[in-house]
Amino acid sequence: MSDSPPAAPSLSQRLLDGDRRALARAITLVEDDRPEGWELVKEVYPHTGKAAVFGFTGPPGVGKSTLIGALTRARRAAGRTVGVLSIDPSSPFTKGALLGDRIRLSEHFLDQGVFIRSMANRGALGGLSEAALQAALLLDAAGREDVFVETVGVGQAEIDIIDHADTIVLVLMPGSGDSIQALKAGVMEIPDVIVINKADHPLTDTMVREIRGVLSLANLDRSPEEVRGRWRVPIVKTEASQGRGVEELVQRLEEHRAHILAEGQLAERRSRNLRNEVLAIATARMRRRMEDELTEDAEFQSLLEAVVERRLDPASAATALLERGSPLEGAIE
Amino acid sequence: MSDSPPAAPSLSQRLLDGDRRALARAITLVEDDRPEGWELVKEVYPHTGKAAVFGFTGPPGVGKSTLIGALTRARRAAGRTVGVLSIDPSSPFTKGALLGDRIRLSEHFLDQGVFIRSMANRGALGGLSEAALQAALLLDAAGREDVFVETVGVGQAEIDIIDHADTIVLVLMPGSGDSIQALKAGVMEIPDVIVINKADHPLTDTMVREIRGVLSLANLDRSPEEVRGRWRVPIVKTEASQGRGVEELVQRLEEHRAHILAEGQLAERRSRNLRNEVLAIATARMRRRMEDELTEDAEFQSLLEAVVERRLDPASAATALLERGSPLEGAIE
Repeated sequence: MSDSPPAAPSLSQRLLDGDRRALARAITLVEDDRPEGWELVKEVYPHTGKAAVFGFTGPPGVGKSTLIGALTRARRAAGRTVGVLSIDPSSPFTKGALLGDRIRLSEHFLDQGVFIRSMANRGALGGLSEAALQAALLLDAAGREDVFVETVGVGQAEIDIIDHADTIVLVLMPGSGDSIQALKAGVMEIPDVIVINKADHPLTDTMVREIRGVLSLANLDRSPEEVRGRWRVPIVKTEASQGRGVEELVQRLEEHRAHILAEGQLAERRSRNLRNEVLAIATARMRRRMEDELTEDAEFQSLLEAVVERRLDPASAATALLERGSPLEGAIE
Repeated sequence: MSDSPPAAPSLSQRLLDGDRRALARAITLVEDDRPEGWELVKEVYPHTGKAAVFGFTGPPGVGKSTLIGALTRARRAAGRTVGVLSIDPSSPFTKGALLGDRIRLSEHFLDQGVFIRSMANRGALGGLSEAALQAALLLDAAGREDVFVETVGVGQAEIDIIDHADTIVLVLMPGSGDSIQALKAGVMEIPDVIVINKADHPLTDTMVREIRGVLSLANLDRSPEEVRGRWRVPIVKTEASQGRGVEELVQRLEEHRAHILAEGQLAERRSRNLRNEVLAIATARMRRRMEDELTEDAEFQSLLEAVVERRLDPASAATALLERGSPLEGAIE
C-alpha cells in the first residue's frame, strides 16, 4: 500500500500564499454571506494590516477607473503587487465598459501581480459595505501591497467603505461644480489628496484656484498649532488616459503615507475605523435579524397596519417591536 | 371663593390648533430626544396624513432655499399654510445667509401662515433622520397644508428623509455636471420633478437636452406598459430669485400629486415609507442602546484591543457583542 497523498492546501493557506483563484473564491464566499467566508476572514485576520489601502471617491464619469489603471501600471513597474476593489456601480470595472476601457484594463487582467474585483450588489447596501470591508481584509491577507478601493461619492455605504482607507483621494474633473460646492459648504469631508483628472480642459486652472480657496477657508477654523502639524492637501492634475501626472500622484500618495506614519495617525485612524467596523457589523446583523424575523410575522403586519391607518405612531410601533415581551394590544388605540 | 380658572390648553391641543410657538416647542422636544416629544407625536399622530409633503434635494448652492421661499410666497397667495423643514447644513435657513437671503426669508418669518425650521445636528446622523421625520409629522398635525423639506443630496440620512416625501424634486443648476453624471450612471434615483434653477445661464438648454437624454434612456429599461402608466418627469426652468418659472413649478407639483392620487401610488408610497420608518427607528435605537452600553464597558474595550492587535477579527468581535451571554475569552485567540 502506498502512503496517502499529502493533503491539498486549505483555502486559507492558498489565500495567504497569494493564489488569485483562492482570493476570488474567498471574496465570493464573503459576498454571498456564507459562513465559510466569515470563518476564512477570521483565520487570516492575524496576517492583515500590512497593505497600504487607498480609497478613491468622486462622481461618476471623472475617470477614477482609468486613473486606478494608470496607478496600477506605475506600482507594478515599481515591483509592488496590487489589488483593486470597485464598489462603484458606474465603473467599467463593474459593468459595460467602452471597448477602449476594456483593452486598457485587460492588460492588468493577465498580470498575476494584479487582482481586480468589483462588488455591486446594490440590493443590500448595509451588507455591501460589510462585505467590501471583509474583501479588503482578504486582499490584504493575500499579500497585496497596494489596495485601491474605488467608490462613487454617493450614499452611506460608500462613505463607510472609503473611511476605512488609510489615504482618501477625491477625484474630480473640470465641470465637477456640485462637488466643489459640497466641499465649500462643508457638506463633503476634506480628503487627503485631490486629483483633477481630464486636466487638458481649459477650465482646469480656474478649478484648482477654486479648490485652493476652499482648502484655505477650511484652515481658518483651525488654530495655528493645528495647521502647523497638519497635512497640506495637495491638488494633483492628471490626464490618466495619457498617463500624465500619474508619477506625481504616486509621489503624493507616498508622502501622505509617510506623514501619517510619522505622526502616529495611521494607527489612530485604523483603530477608530476598526471600532466603527465592529459596531457597523453588529448593527447590520441586528437589523437583518429583525427584518428576517418580521417578514412573515403576523404581529408586525398588524402593527404596520395600525401605523398606516394612523392609529399607532411609528416610534411606538418601533418600541413595541423592541419590547416583544410586552402585550402589543395596549400600544394600539 | 371664585371658581378655579380653566386649565391651560395642553401642548398637544395648542399644536393641533396650529399655534406656532407650540409647534416650535414640540420640534425642540423631538430634536432633543425628550420623552415628552415622542409622547406628543404619539398623541397627535392620528391627526396626520393630511399635509402634502414635497422634498427638495440637490447639491449645495443651486438655490433650493430661494426656490422654496418663492414657492412659499405662491402657496400663501393661494391661501394655503406652509411648513418648511431644512436639513441642509449649507442652507441659509440653517446658518449664515447673505443679507439678501435674510431679507427674502424674513418676509416669511413674520407671516403666521408660514413656519420655518432648520435641523442641523450633524453629530447624530441616524438621530437626525429620525427626528426630522417626527418633525414633519408635527408640522402635518399642526395643520400645515404644504410641507417643504429641504435637504442636500449627500449621505444616507438625507436620502432617508427625502424618501418620505410624497413628491421628490431634484434641484440643479447649469454646472451641475456631477449630478447629471450620477443620474446617467443610475447611481442617483430619478426624482418626480427636475428643476433647473438659475436658468438665465447660457448653458441651460444644453443641460435640459442632456437630462432629457438621461430620462429617455431610463425608460428604455421599461416595458411599453410600464412607460404608458408612468409619470413623465417634467423639467422646469426657474430663476427663483426673480420668481420666474415658479408658477409652472407649482402647476407641475399639483399635477404630480393628482397623478399619484389617481394611480393609488400615494397610499402605496406612504405605506412603504412608514414600514421603513418603523424599522429605521428600531435600528437607530438598538444601535444607540448598544453604543451607550459599550462606552464604559471593559469587556468591549478588551475586544477592541484584540481587534486592533489583529488577534480577533471585526466580525467575530461583533458576534461576541451580540451574544453577550457567551464567554468572550473563547473568542479571543
